[in-house]
Amino acid sequence: MLIILALAIVFSLLLALLNYLRIKKKPAGTDQMAEISETIRQGASEFLKCEFRILYIAAAGIFLVLAVFVSFTGAACFLIGAAMSALAGLVGMKSATLANVRVTNEARETRDVGRTVGIALTGGSVMGLSVAGFALLGLFAVYIIFGVLLGQLEQQRITFHANFLSIADIPFTMSVSCYALGCSVIAMINRVGGGIYTKAADMGADLVGKSEYNIPEDDPRNPATIADNVGDNVGDVAGLGSDLLESYVGAITSSMILAIYTYYSKKGASDAISHSLLLRLVGYPLLFCSIGLLCCTAALAAFNLRRAGGDAKKTLDNTTYLSSALTVGLTALATNLYLPQDIALGGIGFSAGRFSPWICAVAGIIAGILIGQVADYYTSYAHKPALAVAKASEEGPALTITKGMALGMNSVLVPVMILGLCIIAAHATAGLYGVGMAAMGMLSFVAVTVSVDTYGPISDNAGGIAEMCHLDKEVRKITDSLDAVGNTTAAIGKGFAIGSAAFAALSLFASYLYALAGEDSASGISLVLNILNPLTLAGALVGGALPYLFSGILIESVAKTAETMVDEIRNQFRRNPEILEGAMKPDYNRCIHISSKGALKEMKKPAFIAVVSPLVAGFVFGPSFVGGLLIGTTLSAIMLAIYTANSGGAWDNAKKHIEDGHFGGKGSDAHNASIIGDTVGDPLKDTVGPSLDILIKIMSVVALITVSIFSRYNIMGLVL
Amino acid sequence: MLIILALAIVFSLLLALLNYLRIKKKPAGTDQMAEISETIRQGASEFLKCEFRILYIAAAGIFLVLAVFVSFTGAACFLIGAAMSALAGLVGMKSATLANVRVTNEARETRDVGRTVGIALTGGSVMGLSVAGFALLGLFAVYIIFGVLLGQLEQQRITFHANFLSIADIPFTMSVSCYALGCSVIAMINRVGGGIYTKAADMGADLVGKSEYNIPEDDPRNPATIADNVGDNVGDVAGLGSDLLESYVGAITSSMILAIYTYYSKKGASDAISHSLLLRLVGYPLLFCSIGLLCCTAALAAFNLRRAGGDAKKTLDNTTYLSSALTVGLTALATNLYLPQDIALGGIGFSAGRFSPWICAVAGIIAGILIGQVADYYTSYAHKPALAVAKASEEGPALTITKGMALGMNSVLVPVMILGLCIIAAHATAGLYGVGMAAMGMLSFVAVTVSVDTYGPISDNAGGIAEMCHLDKEVRKITDSLDAVGNTTAAIGKGFAIGSAAFAALSLFASYLYALAGEDSASGISLVLNILNPLTLAGALVGGALPYLFSGILIESVAKTAETMVDEIRNQFRRNPEILEGAMKPDYNRCIHISSKGALKEMKKPAFIAVVSPLVAGFVFGPSFVGGLLIGTTLSAIMLAIYTANSGGAWDNAKKHIEDGHFGGKGSDAHNASIIGDTVGDPLKDTVGPSLDILIKIMSVVALITVSIFSRYNIMGLVL
Repeated sequence: MLIILALAIVFSLLLALLNYLRIKKKPAGTDQMAEISETIRQGASEFLKCEFRILYIAAAGIFLVLAVFVSFTGAACFLIGAAMSALAGLVGMKSATLANVRVTNEARETRDVGRTVGIALTGGSVMGLSVAGFALLGLFAVYIIFGVLLGQLEQQRITFHANFLSIADIPFTMSVSCYALGCSVIAMINRVGGGIYTKAADMGADLVGKSEYNIPEDDPRNPATIADNVGDNVGDVAGLGSDLLESYVGAITSSMILAIYTYYSKKGASDAISHSLLLRLVGYPLLFCSIGLLCCTAALAAFNLRRAGGDAKKTLDNTTYLSSALTVGLTALATNLYLPQDIALGGIGFSAGRFSPWICAVAGIIAGILIGQVADYYTSYAHKPALAVAKASEEGPALTITKGMALGMNSVLVPVMILGLCIIAAHATAGLYGVGMAAMGMLSFVAVTVSVDTYGPISDNAGGIAEMCHLDKEVRKITDSLDAVGNTTAAIGKGFAIGSAAFAALSLFASYLYALAGEDSASGISLVLNILNPLTLAGALVGGALPYLFSGILIESVAKTAETMVDEIRNQFRRNPEILEGAMKPDYNRCIHISSKGALKEMKKPAFIAVVSPLVAGFVFGPSFVGGLLIGTTLSAIMLAIYTANSGGAWDNAKKHIEDGHFGGKGSDAHNASIIGDTVGDPLKDTVGPSLDILIKIMSVVALITVSIFSRYNIMGLVL
Repeated sequence: MLIILALAIVFSLLLALLNYLRIKKKPAGTDQMAEISETIRQGASEFLKCEFRILYIAAAGIFLVLAVFVSFTGAACFLIGAAMSALAGLVGMKSATLANVRVTNEARETRDVGRTVGIALTGGSVMGLSVAGFALLGLFAVYIIFGVLLGQLEQQRITFHANFLSIADIPFTMSVSCYALGCSVIAMINRVGGGIYTKAADMGADLVGKSEYNIPEDDPRNPATIADNVGDNVGDVAGLGSDLLESYVGAITSSMILAIYTYYSKKGASDAISHSLLLRLVGYPLLFCSIGLLCCTAALAAFNLRRAGGDAKKTLDNTTYLSSALTVGLTALATNLYLPQDIALGGIGFSAGRFSPWICAVAGIIAGILIGQVADYYTSYAHKPALAVAKASEEGPALTITKGMALGMNSVLVPVMILGLCIIAAHATAGLYGVGMAAMGMLSFVAVTVSVDTYGPISDNAGGIAEMCHLDKEVRKITDSLDAVGNTTAAIGKGFAIGSAAFAALSLFASYLYALAGEDSASGISLVLNILNPLTLAGALVGGALPYLFSGILIESVAKTAETMVDEIRNQFRRNPEILEGAMKPDYNRCIHISSKGALKEMKKPAFIAVVSPLVAGFVFGPSFVGGLLIGTTLSAIMLAIYTANSGGAWDNAKKHIEDGHFGGKGSDAHNASIIGDTVGDPLKDTVGPSLDILIKIMSVVALITVSIFSRYNIMGLVL
């Protein structure tokens, strides 16, 4: 298993390097193109540099706290996680800022959609492969360095049963949890910071440019244009990369931790044979993901070798299908070799034999695809709901907003039902471990999902560069066709992101309860969270409100930064009316600076809330309250995430549909109304939605790591 | 206790009748005023007539189902509840449609704010007193007719312990639950129907009138003006009346039911002394509310006798404070006489002796006031948040919407924390019974809250009539000052509505678990809902999504009807341009008809979902799933209700603030943006928010009534 893991890491990172060099070698086009792309690159680098400064401080602070209160190994693992997450974001952003202008240039030189898609996806693949490669590299390090300790668990078991709460002190689960925490914290900062950056620039540019002065998107006269393009790289590339790396790590580690907890929670299962089985069940998610990564590497390599045809959508779909089919098939084979037929975990029989965890993973994949399809149904203008939003724009912005909101609200039920059914099925097949495996399944071919997701902002940027350099209309048309495809595939990616976040959070939540649970003398631990306990109920209420607070703060941050941006743009137009005539270059850097400064200032509060709220709740109200808090937050955040993502997506697509010439087309009243809808939806779908996914995991991990402390020391416990 | 109850009913209904006659005696003003008020009255009556037809069918259907599957007495109680709820709505609407024009006339004749307030509050008091009076009258009937059976409970206990599930068959709890169901179903239909009616008319009028043609609100040239005014009576009077009657009944009955369940769930508590105590604990909520109603009647009578001063706000506040202070004081006295010092319920010791339930009720009142204050802070333009929304309007509608949404989301946490603390405190004082008592406390002086709430739409209508009859500006100014006060006091009323709905739903949910729970041999019933049971977890997920679906459908219904209205208004303007010049009377009746038809058509689906979803879930997935469903729905609905209410309120007040001349005043771009915000907020705050309050109670009651059936017969149980 470790060999396959090592192979996967090496191959994926090698291919990432190779693709990076291939991109770099390509020409960047005219001087103007090179200049603009250089501005974008610098803006993005500068922001990341500033962000990393905050990140160092946050990481150092958490490292110290962990080292003092938890353990030094845990603190070290935290740092590894943080480093991997930051690295993946950095590498992805570097390659995306190289690729964007080269995509434009390829379109300009060859006018060949196939070759253009090739560059864009190759650029994206650097990010995809790095995300998965670095995530597994970090896990490999943690596993090797501290996993040796897994063999020593046997000895620990005695201590463990003597004082059950010390289950949280099992070095391996602790190391893995801290590793996941490292990834989560960086993801949160990257996602929130990037999300505020990109949407403030986008909103600011739209508010003045489109709504007031009627100049098109990406027009070089708009001073915020380049900030908007920088934002794509900062938010949609670096932010998304850290985000999905965190999801990936969260899904893998929560399965591993659950396997250990489930095993140790039952006294009856402590014989030597089942212990060797435990080792296999802990290793199984790693094996599964290694195979997934190898398959992705193969699929992306195959794409590189073959000359892509003219149909961008087909190319992307083929790569996705190839990698997922390979993953499902090969993991089935590996399962057959790796797991014994007769398995059971902590007294829980696996109802489908050795294939039980595999079935759960596949169920997760299917659930993820279905959720993506539902999102696509609600947000794509090929279907009725988003079309109705577009049509409502004819009646003005109020109805556009109202209809889009209603659409988002209506879209919550079906995905959630799919999640519910998947939970019931996974639990019936392999217990709580199965729920973790379902999350892991969804993300097993993350390398390709991220590649395809990153392809989107690269194409978007490429279009922007074409516009700003006044290239031929034909060029813009090619990049637009690439961009359109990216939007559809991104919907499916979002399905996996939300679904896996929900499952990973629930698995971590179950681990939290294991870590907390008292031992039942007869049958080991009874895993119960009684919602009727008044403390738990109060916790669930407060927990349900946290995602709202978190979202509210994020939206306000975006709005606040966008307002400053609006003032700046207006000022530039007022002071130099020549800008509007195209006779003078606007001051792009001031806008870049505003976005950057706003994002850096505003991102601290939400990130802080995510990390600190379970701690405060734990030390004041104790572990039952925190149990309620976690489940309340998880439930509420899932709903809000789906609602915001789909409302935002529908407004975006309704606008695009109108821009395609329907309901009056560009410049009509309906178009103006749809722009307002899109502007409202932007922070919802690209800042709030994805950040909520991270919120629920970060809170669960923090609670899991600290429960052994606050379950002993809390104000409520001292008072009562 | 029964004597006090009877006295309260008689006195309150007498005063209601007296006030009704007093209002009727007043002159209606000029012929034009009489004509317009007649049109409003007819529109409202016609709608209620049509609505009642649907209501008969729904009631008859549910009656049959109850009679066949549950019990005939239950079905009869259901009908009593339905009749009381419908009656209260009808009486309130009758008096409101009489009072509105008389308020205008009083302002026209006397120019005296004090006398005008007098008419408006007297008109409102008819509704307030009827709501409380009819609610208690129905309960009295149920208590007398079927409460005799309470004495027979002793005999039932043996059956009960032999087959625990038959706890749901205890005749008294069943009767009371069915009575509450009757009130809930009518409230749901009235609230949803009225909410769609009024907001569709409002939205339609605003979309064309204010946004397109820049004609002011209530302008007689707008064909939807009268429909808008009818809507106020249908939605904000009749809808609100049934709604609060339902809350009132829900709060009282859930405490009564919980007392019985808590008692019978513990074998140890079955001696004769504690049984007589049980009777007192079951009667206590009735006693409390009777005293509350007597105090309200006294306060409102005192108001009638005294000549009101010129300060409208002071008058309303004084009446509210007087009634609540009287209630708190007198109930303390009554508690001292009615309850023995040493009380305990089902083994749960009451930590503050005989005053325990009283303390919980007072805690509920305090919580309700605090929640109202928070709502006031977030929505009133005297404070920063709503001001920021008004300011953002200068940057166009997108930022208005974004800021308002963020405000609503931010406003969820504090009220929910207050609820959480109140739950912890009430539970520590008197167990789950205490949580029910907290809900009851909030609503004990409902007669005054409803009077004050109804005063709002009456003043609103009065202003509309003044505008439409081209009366002196001075008159409009007086009615506007009345209206402004109504908005502030309504915020506190909403705090009580949301808080009591949450507590009542949780109490009913606890009763559901009692009805479901298996018996623990040693210590009676252990009341546990384990959220980690996969069925419960899946149920909680689906439950969390239901309020979103429900809200989405409601918003869409309003939008759809408003769109038809918009087309109609545009058509009238296009066909007869003289309307816009004021030379020709528009066809008001067509608009009234559109609102009415739309509301009647659209209200069926959401009402159906509310009643049927727990049944379907129960018969397919069984009782554990339904437990999750209820808690998921309750949590999610509380958050959504607060969010929608406060966002909507803030948009409304931001608009008013701009209309007062700030940020550019009427006709400015900021004003247009704020109108869009208000239009988006209208269905949120007046249709979705209040309906969610009813949703959670109706689902809990349905589940409670049917659990004994679907816990035995469900597909999941048959398959597994």
